[in-house]
Amino acid sequence: MTYFLGIDLGGTNIKTGVVDDNGAVVSKHSQPTEGKYGADRVLKNMVDAAQTVVDAAELTLKDMAYIGIGSPGPVDTENGIVISSPNISGWSNYPMRNLIADALGRPTVLANDANAAAFGEYWVGAGASPDIQNLIMLTLGTGVGGGVIVNGQIISGTCGYAAEVGHMIVQPDGRECGCGQKGCLETYASASRTAVRACEMLAKGKASSLQAIYKSDPQQITAKAIFDAAAEGDELANEVIDQTAYYLALACISLTRILDPQMFVFAGGMALAGDALLSRIRQHFDAQNWHAAPNAVTLEIAQLGNDAGLIGAAAIAWDANRND
Amino acid sequence: MTYFLGIDLGGTNIKTGVVDDNGAVVSKHSQPTEGKYGADRVLKNMVDAAQTVVDAAELTLKDMAYIGIGSPGPVDTENGIVISSPNISGWSNYPMRNLIADALGRPTVLANDANAAAFGEYWVGAGASPDIQNLIMLTLGTGVGGGVIVNGQIISGTCGYAAEVGHMIVQPDGRECGCGQKGCLETYASASRTAVRACEMLAKGKASSLQAIYKSDPQQITAKAIFDAAAEGDELANEVIDQTAYYLALACISLTRILDPQMFVFAGGMALAGDALLSRIRQHFDAQNWHAAPNAVTLEIAQLGNDAGLIGAAAIAWDANRND
Repeated sequence: MTYFLGIDLGGTNIKTGVVDDNGAVVSKHSQPTEGKYGADRVLKNMVDAAQTVVDAAELTLKDMAYIGIGSPGPVDTENGIVISSPNISGWSNYPMRNLIADALGRPTVLANDANAAAFGEYWVGAGASPDIQNLIMLTLGTGVGGGVIVNGQIISGTCGYAAEVGHMIVQPDGRECGCGQKGCLETYASASRTAVRACEMLAKGKASSLQAIYKSDPQQITAKAIFDAAAEGDELANEVIDQTAYYLALACISLTRILDPQMFVFAGGMALAGDALLSRIRQHFDAQNWHAAPNAVTLEIAQLGNDAGLIGAAAIAWDANRND
Repeated sequence: MTYFLGIDLGGTNIKTGVVDDNGAVVSKHSQPTEGKYGADRVLKNMVDAAQTVVDAAELTLKDMAYIGIGSPGPVDTENGIVISSPNISGWSNYPMRNLIADALGRPTVLANDANAAAFGEYWVGAGASPDIQNLIMLTLGTGVGGGVIVNGQIISGTCGYAAEVGHMIVQPDGRECGCGQKGCLETYASASRTAVRACEMLAKGKASSLQAIYKSDPQQITAKAIFDAAAEGDELANEVIDQTAYYLALACISLTRILDPQMFVFAGGMALAGDALLSRIRQHFDAQNWHAAPNAVTLEIAQLGNDAGLIGAAAIAWDANRND
């Protein structure tokens, strides 16, 4: 058996896992990132977390064929450098890969965390079939993130900014996005912005089973609450979800025209809605999609759940090892 | 000196060229495709055209390191198969690469013609600098075609349908496209559809220096006529061009978010407008683009002109040779 150490570096927690070459998690561990204390502290925490999780697997660092790190923000994968990080102070052109490789004594690779998670789904998740070599993941959370796999490889882009699918413009002169653009997919189809759209309609006093919740505590109007209401037949909730699905479908069609993938994988909190979301995206996808050529792309829900980050980090380690 | 034979297979003409390893055209030749007479006739014409252009270069087929074919419609590059072709009867899953390789006795590669043309610009055109490894071409003609180069490789997609950038949806529920979708980039930003939009405004009687031309012969309202009128300050012409540029900019922003390229290259008839088009696309691109991260993408006009097709076909031959 070959083992890989995955380190999923989040703004809040460092999640580590020892993963075998079937993608099974042998041990896992989570501890605070403590990004506010600066880069050295985070590095020390990563090293500690790595040792802890390897110990928990009753293995040693020497048993790890490769270490993979998934880091937020843009990274220079070739040189193993974190270009910048939104949540960790002092990380600007930070040579993380070599620092970890030196500290842990094992060959190490680095990727953007969302890209790594997509690669995990490609390796042992929704896209695990060997036939699947072209896959696009969309993660529907506070924002809309993503990962693009072409011919079994992560597309990172020139400056590490590829696969920002949440910032495709799906509505000209549309809703304002935090990124400075208007009409980004994220402004319609993230879990948070889906809730915002519902709240806007509720604020106008439109009839809905969600009005009582909205009036007592608008924070409770989450994507989950909206899907729950829709399942009970609430019209407003259905309308909101339908618009989310519509824009996701438009984005998937444009992505299909550009990259001709085999599979879209939906992840993140809102993807927990499962078929209630997927069937609507598929409906709009089929209705809006061209008939100029046959199209065999499938839409799936991600399979790796809460372990997606650390399995993704292990996946890039697995990939580096197979290409070694 | 190493030589490559490029065969650019068009619906009307077969253009062939002997191209050296600097991308210089040593000889070129054009003859009718005669697609209506079926696949065998076209194959014979390709063989004849290849021999003719090699003779014209005072070389032999044995001097050709590789042969490259650019073919319209989707192709299976790996197996050298034309999946389907809009203009040539009987070409369905047609093993063109091997047939040409057998007939001409040289190793042969096959790609979609638009992808090959993009690869030509990458090799010795607008993207010839070795620094440029990620490039997207948009060809503005009757439709909007394209090619996507990532890490120095053509992205063909799962079924040979990648890089159909003209069919990205840029306007939800927008103009109807021949492909069956609504709001495709092509319906706003091809040369033909730019002219259609102008004609729609002229039909409403809007004031314009183009009214006289429109009334005598609407066919004369071409993209070129519109750019000419805009250069003289015509307001309607400027408005039409501005909308074309706006949608091209939106598409380029979405493509930048997905693929993080270094360069966009604009080709095709309407790109002959040069800076009059490019400066407006750039203006909208800068105005609409995110400020979440620095962006170094450049917008350029294609450089290979009428030889783009055959140089592109030679470019994939050059690429196959370097990877041999």
